[in-house]
Amino acid sequence: MRALAELFGCEPSEEAVFAHRRATDPDAYAATLLRATGTEWLLIDDGFPAPGEGVAWEAMGDLAGCRSAPVMRIERVGEEGLAAGDELDALRERVRDAVAAARASGFVGLKTVAAYRSGLDVQPPDAAAADAVLADAPRRLAGKALLEVLLDDALAANAATGEPLPVQVHCGFGDSDLFLPRADPTLLGPLIERYATTPFVLLHCYPFVRQAGWLAHVYGNVFLDVSLTIPHVWRHAEMVREALELAPASKLLYASDAARTPELYFLAARGWRAALAEVLAEALEPEEAEAAARRILRGNAIALYGLDRR
Amino acid sequence: MRALAELFGCEPSEEAVFAHRRATDPDAYAATLLRATGTEWLLIDDGFPAPGEGVAWEAMGDLAGCRSAPVMRIERVGEEGLAAGDELDALRERVRDAVAAARASGFVGLKTVAAYRSGLDVQPPDAAAADAVLADAPRRLAGKALLEVLLDDALAANAATGEPLPVQVHCGFGDSDLFLPRADPTLLGPLIERYATTPFVLLHCYPFVRQAGWLAHVYGNVFLDVSLTIPHVWRHAEMVREALELAPASKLLYASDAARTPELYFLAARGWRAALAEVLAEALEPEEAEAAARRILRGNAIALYGLDRR
Amino acid sequence: MRALAELFGCEPSEEAVFAHRRATDPDAYAATLLRATGTEWLLIDDGFPAPGEGVAWEAMGDLAGCRSAPVMRIERVGEEGLAAGDELDALRERVRDAVAAARASGFVGLKTVAAYRSGLDVQPPDAAAADAVLADAPRRLAGKALLEVLLDDALAANAATGEPLPVQVHCGFGDSDLFLPRADPTLLGPLIERYATTPFVLLHCYPFVRQAGWLAHVYGNVFLDVSLTIPHVWRHAEMVREALELAPASKLLYASDAARTPELYFLAARGWRAALAEVLAEALEPEEAEAAARRILRGNAIALYGLDRR
Repeated sequence: MRALAELFGCEPSEEAVFAHRRATDPDAYAATLLRATGTEWLLIDDGFPAPGEGVAWEAMGDLAGCRSAPVMRIERVGEEGLAAGDELDALRERVRDAVAAARASGFVGLKTVAAYRSGLDVQPPDAAAADAVLADAPRRLAGKALLEVLLDDALAANAATGEPLPVQVHCGFGDSDLFLPRADPTLLGPLIERYATTPFVLLHCYPFVRQAGWLAHVYGNVFLDVSLTIPHVWRHAEMVREALELAPASKLLYASDAARTPELYFLAARGWRAALAEVLAEALEPEEAEAAARRILRGNAIALYGLDRR
Repeated sequence: MRALAELFGCEPSEEAVFAHRRATDPDAYAATLLRATGTEWLLIDDGFPAPGEGVAWEAMGDLAGCRSAPVMRIERVGEEGLAAGDELDALRERVRDAVAAARASGFVGLKTVAAYRSGLDVQPPDAAAADAVLADAPRRLAGKALLEVLLDDALAANAATGEPLPVQVHCGFGDSDLFLPRADPTLLGPLIERYATTPFVLLHCYPFVRQAGWLAHVYGNVFLDVSLTIPHVWRHAEMVREALELAPASKLLYASDAARTPELYFLAARGWRAALAEVLAEALEPEEAEAAARRILRGNAIALYGLDRR
Repeated sequence: MRALAELFGCEPSEEAVFAHRRATDPDAYAATLLRATGTEWLLIDDGFPAPGEGVAWEAMGDLAGCRSAPVMRIERVGEEGLAAGDELDALRERVRDAVAAARASGFVGLKTVAAYRSGLDVQPPDAAAADAVLADAPRRLAGKALLEVLLDDALAANAATGEPLPVQVHCGFGDSDLFLPRADPTLLGPLIERYATTPFVLLHCYPFVRQAGWLAHVYGNVFLDVSLTIPHVWRHAEMVREALELAPASKLLYASDAARTPELYFLAARGWRAALAEVLAEALEPEEAEAAARRILRGNAIALYGLDRR
């Protein structure tokens, strides 16, 4: 509240901040917060808020005064197939085709929320079991066998392009519709090995930040951002410390996971910068610390998502 | 030892503290330690020490010079049924009846030590499997299917009262007769959702303090105390920091888990106060910090257990 | 790099350190680093690097200018039996005989890397299932049932000596050929109880350092070193803090896990000493802190491995 009040120039109370919010045009309000972050590129999950709700990725870039690009949520594509009444073969082809065309369609990455649905203990694909899930005509892609078949199809189609897009994987905490023991990123080990040419980006991770850092330490194709963790967990700096206990600075990426709530963009950017200033200074000489901060806030993402070639 | 020696006015050595202990009347010794905590209410598990051993809850209040009330250990009720040779139906009815009458009988909460017995991965009740466990005439309530049937009966009877008592759940560490991987509180997710009107209080939690804090963050009906953790884990303040990383101050409760060893009441109270003074001052303005400390040490428990209505 | 440059008397850059390394005789280079650690005893796993590669334990002592002794890797013994084409009975007898004779053969401990192979969720031995694994003529001892039969044979033969050697158990992190969820040391609970007279030493442990500390707190026969963690995890002191949250100083042992890379011996010794100086001073009076540091760096290992009787 104090940080928001300072930005808005109002009294540092919850009431004053809320009054300011209600008195301001929503787009102008969002734009003020987004522009205060100093963001150059917004990479936006195309599956949340649900298509049709919220602000689409192009408009988000306009509000923020920066470039933007979409990330393809694999479950969003699959659920379009469920809504269309696809049989299994058609559903699988839909996912494979969408992923194969993703880069040409302007996507900078793929994303999966399997942790929310059936867990990160992803089993080898079993088409018969997937068919049995589909027989119940689900609208939400949550049945374990079906999700795993489509996820594997997506990963295979992505790898087959020869220049696979980074795959973001929701790990660790989030809302209550999550069984946390199955959101531990180290469960992904076998998948990470099977798709060794695909960069995986572990999102959020808390309370498994150290586990994610270990994966980034031992696998060349694993990166992490602790996005959601920074605005929500009080101790920003401690989260960055744990992320960097094993992972090198070349593997950590800034992200906010903000959606729906424009304040989170601002608070995440502010929290990350303060945390990096504190933590990197504990371990590095000033010039090294600045270089590492630039990589984490900017350079790693530009290189990983190929943003300099767009 | 230094803290105890200061209280007793003896030399700060293990030998001097022990000599003082042996030279003092046991009740007077316990009363000195209990009264030094400044406790207003003692809420006492009626299942440990075992009934007949130790000091009953009424006498504990007399020693401590404060009010006291019992918490009903579900396994204690079940084991009375095992000792009486109850058939399954009678055993289930015994548990349901005891829980339904608990508030009228003066209990302020229920408690389960399922983590010690068959784990927090509680499965839906299976009466046939419970009957098979009972066929072996156990004296201890540890067989997974039987414990789960009785726990579900207790939770259902509690919810059916319309004003359910808080349910304390032992989580995380304790003595060696515990398989720690099954004491992770996030395993409770499905149970917490099924009994959404029941307040759950997660006890101890270490090394899953962050996991417990996440549950308290996403579920309105989850609270935590890290009781045992404070007197036993050297870094008191760090435990409170982790508990509050995600959980708001309205969800954290002071508790000592002390039993048998009167020194632990004193050391827990002292450790908690020092930890709160340190941690809350890091994050809050002085007045906010004092208000938060009052809630954690007193107000949250009064409201949750309805102590102001007794 | 800065610490290495200071030892070598060169510029504090990666290039200068590497140039010094390449310009120096390998044995002299290793000896400089090993001797700078001030080590009195090197206890060396005889299974890594693989026999025939690297420097044998006797030669390591010569390089380091100190005494040395071997630790018997149970999987190394088993794999010699696989290479020899042993049937199951012969293989089991080979392991039992080697372990029974281990102390007389000069070994100071046993070691298992089951965490790397089939996980620490060790099941009761099943000879028929082990035989089925052996039928595939494996060269590497990784099949779960076979490894578990041989591990149990080794532990039983060790306990039957009446003076069991300490058993080192790799826990937690390491290279990528590890499924981390099965490397949690608390999975070992039932094994630790079954072999209650055998001292178990938990190695590495990260990110399960707190879990390992709890085991050392509740079981008299559990010790821990966080070896690998210190040179690799940036925050040395935090690792020691977590190890000592519950475990007493009498249960923590210095170790480096260094192998192949002589710099790690030096960096581990330097990191441990700095970490102990920082952490023990936070909790203890200066004389107590020095005594605790001496136990952790020296006394605990001498007593546990019986080095004063050799």
